[in-house]
Amino acid sequence: MYTDREYMELALNLAKTAKGKTNPNPLVGAVLVKDGVIVGTGLHRKAGEPHAEVHAFNMAGDYAKGATLYVTLEPCSHYGKTPPCVDLVKNSGVERVVVATLDPNPKVSGRGVQILRDAGIEVEVGLLEKEARKLNERFFHNMLTNRPFVTLKYAMTLDGKIATYTGHSKWISGENSRLQVHQLRDEMDAILVGIGTVLKDNPFLTTRLPDRQGKNPVRVILDSRLQIPLDANVLNDEAKTIIVTTTEADPKKIVELEKNNVTLIYCSKNEQGICLEEMLDQLYKFGITDILVEGGGEVNASFIRAGLVNKFIIYIAPKLLGGRRSISPVAGEDLETMDLAAKVEFDSFERIGEDLCIIAYPKQGEHHG
Amino acid sequence: MYTDREYMELALNLAKTAKGKTNPNPLVGAVLVKDGVIVGTGLHRKAGEPHAEVHAFNMAGDYAKGATLYVTLEPCSHYGKTPPCVDLVKNSGVERVVVATLDPNPKVSGRGVQILRDAGIEVEVGLLEKEARKLNERFFHNMLTNRPFVTLKYAMTLDGKIATYTGHSKWISGENSRLQVHQLRDEMDAILVGIGTVLKDNPFLTTRLPDRQGKNPVRVILDSRLQIPLDANVLNDEAKTIIVTTTEADPKKIVELEKNNVTLIYCSKNEQGICLEEMLDQLYKFGITDILVEGGGEVNASFIRAGLVNKFIIYIAPKLLGGRRSISPVAGEDLETMDLAAKVEFDSFERIGEDLCIIAYPKQGEHHG
Repeated sequence: MYTDREYMELALNLAKTAKGKTNPNPLVGAVLVKDGVIVGTGLHRKAGEPHAEVHAFNMAGDYAKGATLYVTLEPCSHYGKTPPCVDLVKNSGVERVVVATLDPNPKVSGRGVQILRDAGIEVEVGLLEKEARKLNERFFHNMLTNRPFVTLKYAMTLDGKIATYTGHSKWISGENSRLQVHQLRDEMDAILVGIGTVLKDNPFLTTRLPDRQGKNPVRVILDSRLQIPLDANVLNDEAKTIIVTTTEADPKKIVELEKNNVTLIYCSKNEQGICLEEMLDQLYKFGITDILVEGGGEVNASFIRAGLVNKFIIYIAPKLLGGRRSISPVAGEDLETMDLAAKVEFDSFERIGEDLCIIAYPKQGEHHG
Repeated sequence: MYTDREYMELALNLAKTAKGKTNPNPLVGAVLVKDGVIVGTGLHRKAGEPHAEVHAFNMAGDYAKGATLYVTLEPCSHYGKTPPCVDLVKNSGVERVVVATLDPNPKVSGRGVQILRDAGIEVEVGLLEKEARKLNERFFHNMLTNRPFVTLKYAMTLDGKIATYTGHSKWISGENSRLQVHQLRDEMDAILVGIGTVLKDNPFLTTRLPDRQGKNPVRVILDSRLQIPLDANVLNDEAKTIIVTTTEADPKKIVELEKNNVTLIYCSKNEQGICLEEMLDQLYKFGITDILVEGGGEVNASFIRAGLVNKFIIYIAPKLLGGRRSISPVAGEDLETMDLAAKVEFDSFERIGEDLCIIAYPKQGEHHG
């Protein structure tokens, strides 16, 4: 006989397997248990496909009667691409429902639980809530802000360098870390760099995985003066590119780019350059729910100083480069004193091959900037 | 009944408690076991005091007959401040001796074991050898090179900065990390900085511990042109200071400093400045067996590029400072390409309060520079 906690862990682990595949939907897992036996399991695999509960009830059939449902997110109470799951749960004959966390959408949060309770089903909320919210950190951020979840990533040496003074950076991190970055791209709706990176490295910014066809994220290029060359790699392959510029951009270049089938987004300028808040608002309307910032020092500083980074993924390679003019991962305007630095909280440390991978989040209650 | 391994672990743990107190001697622990009962324990507490084996045999008395001795380092076979331990072991009546590692000194390595075997005692060598060598990494380095063991330490932000462009750095790391650095100073024979740090911060470089009187390491100041002001803090308290300079230094300033009871060391100059190899040779002759380099970027780069760092202790604070002119932990001449970076191997990662502490060693078989 397992505990509630173990069944919920299983549901979370099922949900996790679809990471990056369900956008804009959340990751959800469901487990149905009757008399100590798991009678149904399911997870949401992909937007447009059945919700986790549907798979679990399909598997359970009549065994659902009198069972307990463990589900990582409050069952939906609205008609989307599929009918509301609460109806299914209500009519299934389950006696008890354990929900890890409520729906973050303020318009429907708690409604699913209420409908089930009104139908006489025992409902508990909050088991492994922290884990469930973290699993869906992207979805929660989307629902609460209507903006993409921003992950900022860089790889640096142990003495804080991302390139030599000549810009040479191949390679800072090891093979395993670089593979992990491609897996990350595969999970993301978009990847963002500044025009500086395009002009210097002419990257593809596509997903290259050894064992399967990855999904290419939309490339987002910050280019306030439309300096991008028409023959840039990001403009000449099958993956999609969005260029973010300002209304001051050269109309002739705009016409040329539009001929190239590129999407342009226009934002106002502020002291730091393109208004990133406006950009994020617009990208979300384009269906981009998460974005990986792989910028150089200036782009990274803009996002950090504007307080727009939701998660940091930092690779540290076991190397000491030194050099008075070597390039740093975060640049931008100089601050006078150390206490003005943006604060983060370390979440985890993991060895990736020879490298160290640090996950950090902005410190709660701190304004970055 | 415990295993050989567990008794040796105990001996290592006993040895460890005297860290920083036995210099120039090694850390040694000893455990005597008879019929599954520990009958004697001991550790070397301080140079000039009895060796670990002596304490263990004193405790054991007649129980030593037929017992097994677990000792973390090969018993000494020469007359030092105390008589050779092999004689004691030979005459004790023990039947079996388990040694973690041989003495590193090429002149005596293996001799103690041979004497015991010749006396008919069963001797095994190599149990937890790696751990035993690491415990005495300082001593092994001393014996093999006749130089102090060099530990380089810095605290930086998560984006690789040790100060703002104005030099402001109070504080990068948290209270717990700063306390740990004072504990480290307490264990070290010497601490080294460049004259730049003295001129900028006028530090004391003494050990300040909340709960007890710490030991002040000898302050070693790299000062090729003898720029140090006579009223510098490091010249005006009870802790000892050595100034490392060159034969080109101003004789008048030399006289003034010698009046201040300061020790001067003269080294030749090479392209990078003071010849650090020569300096280390001389410091070892002064009885300095380990040294903590707390330099700025230039001093750090000199040691790293010369391949003279034996261990790295790096604190990473959960902060992102940014800034185009912020100061980096390792500077020095610029390298053209990333593959020229000095390679290290991560040994451990530990959370210290809010910070991360990384221990790393130079990568085996790599030349740094």
